[in-house]
Amino acid sequence: MSGNVLTEQEAIRQSLKLVEKSGFCLLGTIADDGSPNIKGMYNVKHEGLKKIWFSTNTSSRRVQQLRKDDRACVYFVAAGRPGKGQSKGLMLSGTVEILQDIESRKMLWSEGARIYYPLGVMDPDYCVLCFKARTGNFYHKLQNAIFDIR
Amino acid sequence: MSGNVLTEQEAIRQSLKLVEKSGFCLLGTIADDGSPNIKGMYNVKHEGLKKIWFSTNTSSRRVQQLRKDDRACVYFVAAGRPGKGQSKGLMLSGTVEILQDIESRKMLWSEGARIYYPLGVMDPDYCVLCFKARTGNFYHKLQNAIFDIR
Repeated sequence: MSGNVLTEQEAIRQSLKLVEKSGFCLLGTIADDGSPNIKGMYNVKHEGLKKIWFSTNTSSRRVQQLRKDDRACVYFVAAGRPGKGQSKGLMLSGTVEILQDIESRKMLWSEGARIYYPLGVMDPDYCVLCFKARTGNFYHKLQNAIFDIR
Repeated sequence: MSGNVLTEQEAIRQSLKLVEKSGFCLLGTIADDGSPNIKGMYNVKHEGLKKIWFSTNTSSRRVQQLRKDDRACVYFVAAGRPGKGQSKGLMLSGTVEILQDIESRKMLWSEGARIYYPLGVMDPDYCVLCFKARTGNFYHKLQNAIFDIR
């Protein structure tokens, strides 16, 4: 039945919906020794599926890793119960740019962030990660759709 | 105040608690081109923090990647609200063994899995991943504790 086939268009539509409703996502990076790393991140700002911005500590292991290898993935998930095939997952693959300019800092700043960056918006330990997606891989109901991000 | 310091012992205790209550976790692997990949997995069986077993499709990209590079991480998360510092995250780092023996198949099998492996417990497209952790990295309340898994 054609209605059951996950088209690229439908995968992109559902991916956007998943990103919109996710307050949380996972950032995948490569450690110094080439092994994979994952860290949970708040999804505070995004531009469609193209760009996702995160705030993080400049001194963090994540930032050190990204300085050496800027390749990353961002994963969004809506987990269903096992054996029902209802879980949705979206993996965006791309690269990360580390930003410390005033505009980027202000764009992501919220007063709640002061617990992480006590010196405020200009805290040298505060930086912004801009993830730029190149491809998406959306999974739902036992089907996968891989698409380019334009 | 010493009560606020996250000791290794306390990090391991809280890590075990997080794994116990998580029905879902994230598997990080390395793609052919060396970039990071993430996939959501059901947490169906584990042995403390040492071993975690997953079932997956033998034909999946994940299995192909792990045949080339067996290094992986498994991430467990309990996301709190932003700006509260309450989120908990555990990253276990280690390697994955791909198993297709009868014992491993039966150990993880449930009838609900038939939607993924229509031929049942001996379906050639059904395999078991055994993740063996070497180190743990637990995060809570702005503190990190890194520990060896013994």
